[in-house]
Amino acid sequence: MCLIMDSEDDHHNNNDGTDVLSPPFNFSMVEDGIYRSGLPRPDNFAFLDTLNLRSIIYLCPEPYPEENLKFLEANNIKLFQFGIEGKTDPPTPMPKDTVLDALKVLVDVRNHPILIHCKRGKHRTGCLVGCLRKVQSWCLSSVLEEYQKNAGLQWRQRDLNLIEAFDIVSLRKCLLSIMYRYHGYGFKRRRLAYEEEKVQTPKPQAAKV
Amino acid sequence: MCLIMDSEDDHHNNNDGTDVLSPPFNFSMVEDGIYRSGLPRPDNFAFLDTLNLRSIIYLCPEPYPEENLKFLEANNIKLFQFGIEGKTDPPTPMPKDTVLDALKVLVDVRNHPILIHCKRGKHRTGCLVGCLRKVQSWCLSSVLEEYQKNAGLQWRQRDLNLIEAFDIVSLRKCLLSIMYRYHGYGFKRRRLAYEEEKVQTPKPQAAKV
Repeated sequence: MCLIMDSEDDHHNNNDGTDVLSPPFNFSMVEDGIYRSGLPRPDNFAFLDTLNLRSIIYLCPEPYPEENLKFLEANNIKLFQFGIEGKTDPPTPMPKDTVLDALKVLVDVRNHPILIHCKRGKHRTGCLVGCLRKVQSWCLSSVLEEYQKNAGLQWRQRDLNLIEAFDIVSLRKCLLSIMYRYHGYGFKRRRLAYEEEKVQTPKPQAAKV
Repeated sequence: MCLIMDSEDDHHNNNDGTDVLSPPFNFSMVEDGIYRSGLPRPDNFAFLDTLNLRSIIYLCPEPYPEENLKFLEANNIKLFQFGIEGKTDPPTPMPKDTVLDALKVLVDVRNHPILIHCKRGKHRTGCLVGCLRKVQSWCLSSVLEEYQKNAGLQWRQRDLNLIEAFDIVSLRKCLLSIMYRYHGYGFKRRRLAYEEEKVQTPKPQAAKV
């Protein structure tokens, strides 16, 4: 049984002759139009191509790899970089303001379909998705369960604390821009329509970010 | 920090006064319109309600819980039960034919949005999702990575073997019914349109299952 893939071989083949797609490490779907993963490598580009991405949120301070930049350019994908330090020695607190800035980009459907990634798709990506789940009214135990499932044995208490303490009230104004998308799920509930706020329909073509 | 939720309390409240939604244990999104989880409990019904489910694939031989049946009836959700034994002592092989039957229901978009669940959302559900990923041309290492992420420390070699050996060729005919859905992702690639087969558009209202 083969559990290890040869990274140099970027064109796989099934028994039946069809091409095989290789998602990035730790890939999964968060919501319709929102994906998460570790850093994509060239052998994942064919898979990414099927997602028709409009943007990527990259959560590391390191410059984006040259080959990934070329892929983005060729596919007209916008890059939003938020440099969050990944090192834990010395332990640095996750910067709340940066997470909030990334969340504002994330909830804007004009940027969807969007992929969030850091290096391994565990801590920085996990924090951002965790904060999104709070915005979606998920109960805290489920938010933390999802974080831990993706971080595996390397989950960090620091991240759980950030997610738990994260204040979603300040995000309310941005929510207007995602409403119609979440409403797309089911028209029975309009959970994100607070009070008497008017719903603005985002204009994917003409809108300014 | 609260990691344990009181199962009797099915109406939670956030700091800011909004209701809190509690997804079922081990919940995640597989694809647009396909979800997976462990057995939903009554305190998860408010969350399930937001998914606007059309059907549920239940993979255990035990009768469906009475309160869950009531929820399904009240929301007009169709139940597809495929009784796969969960016990491993004595070790029983996962029945390939039953997995194939479940997969046929799963790939039919007339049943979407659909939730797959067994008891813990790990082994039986993991096998079915793993076979779906093969149909989607995911490379085997990524399919197994996803299985293991959801099964955690309790992953079983038997399940990995089933997924690896599962023959997707027999499913080709059923693929016609999901094509337009997967095409919805991105119109650039028409990966599932094999050869010169004609694409049938499913008719959600009048179609026979």
